[in-house]
Amino acid sequence: MTDDVKPPPPRSRRLPRAVRERQILDAAVEVFSRHGYHSASMDEISDVAGVSKPMIYSYLGAKEDLFAKCIRREATRLLEAVREGVRSELPPDMQLWYGLRAFYRFVAEYRDSWTVLHRQALTVGGQFAGEINLLRSKAIDMVAALVVTAGTKKGLGQIAEFSGPALAVSLVGAAESLADWWLDHSDVSDGVLASWLMNLVWLGFNDLIEGEVWQPS
Amino acid sequence: MTDDVKPPPPRSRRLPRAVRERQILDAAVEVFSRHGYHSASMDEISDVAGVSKPMIYSYLGAKEDLFAKCIRREATRLLEAVREGVRSELPPDMQLWYGLRAFYRFVAEYRDSWTVLHRQALTVGGQFAGEINLLRSKAIDMVAALVVTAGTKKGLGQIAEFSGPALAVSLVGAAESLADWWLDHSDVSDGVLASWLMNLVWLGFNDLIEGEVWQPS
Repeated sequence: MTDDVKPPPPRSRRLPRAVRERQILDAAVEVFSRHGYHSASMDEISDVAGVSKPMIYSYLGAKEDLFAKCIRREATRLLEAVREGVRSELPPDMQLWYGLRAFYRFVAEYRDSWTVLHRQALTVGGQFAGEINLLRSKAIDMVAALVVTAGTKKGLGQIAEFSGPALAVSLVGAAESLADWWLDHSDVSDGVLASWLMNLVWLGFNDLIEGEVWQPS
Repeated sequence: MTDDVKPPPPRSRRLPRAVRERQILDAAVEVFSRHGYHSASMDEISDVAGVSKPMIYSYLGAKEDLFAKCIRREATRLLEAVREGVRSELPPDMQLWYGLRAFYRFVAEYRDSWTVLHRQALTVGGQFAGEINLLRSKAIDMVAALVVTAGTKKGLGQIAEFSGPALAVSLVGAAESLADWWLDHSDVSDGVLASWLMNLVWLGFNDLIEGEVWQPS
């Protein structure tokens, strides 16, 4: 093959739209994670993605739409990662363990995603609160279902139905809070993190369904 | 006393500045809680406070300053309420119990304060994140100190020093998350809320310092 018949390098505008959209969203997550919603610029997203601004607007819309799409994609990814991690044939504590491991592995691997979902989306609030609340409520439902299953196995279905949602809300809050702390303490492994939470929360919950109750002395 | 010598009703501009500032902040917390930072209007704050807008600007500054002052005042109030609730002569679990009770009583009594501190401040983010993080880190320090005290009593000071901050972060995250849930489920009493958390978290922690450890099976 000689130089004069060598095909031209594929030009970036030849890429299929789906690939382009992924490039843009990847770049947007990176830039939003770094600067936050308000300070992030479409120019930087365009530079990082290697996609022109007009093409970004045409494919995914303005900054607000782009941010909403980032949140939706990352929330879906996170939930899928956790769902895949949970092995539903195992006992409830092992399901929670694998769910937490999957959650922290996701946070470690897609640190920008978590930053956008947790820190940046919260600081924008209002218009994106719906997306974030949907993610949280799905996570809470997953945990509440585990609590009810575990409680029912011990013949405490009614108590578990009553307190399950609140316990799940507490557990999800604890897991999020710890993930946020982890962003600034990344020397701790994801396994240690998950086992802190299991020890803190599951042992307590286990006592509860074994009938051991803490009461003020 | 006849009508013609009756003193005029005290005119509102005669009130001392400190009283005025309190009126303005009370009104601002109410309005920010109802509408959020962005949608709240200085006109409504002025109406609710019964204080003219120019006086609000002169005493407490523009909307941004006013919001920052609301956060600072409510954060200080909340921390003081919890500190007063904790009785440092009691064992660590009872200290945590009273701290949680005080926290949830504060949320119940000053629902607008909590809404501004938790929901509204987060949705504004950026410029107020410092105030909110300061509040959280003070709460976390209080809980971490309890964990270390409890651990040290059991001869597990080193483990408690290592894991204490992360356990405290988890616990504060769980308590906040449950308080947020409570805003939409206010039929549950503050005592039930605090005891859910004690059972979930303290029993787990207690197992841990008794040397019982959860491990994947």
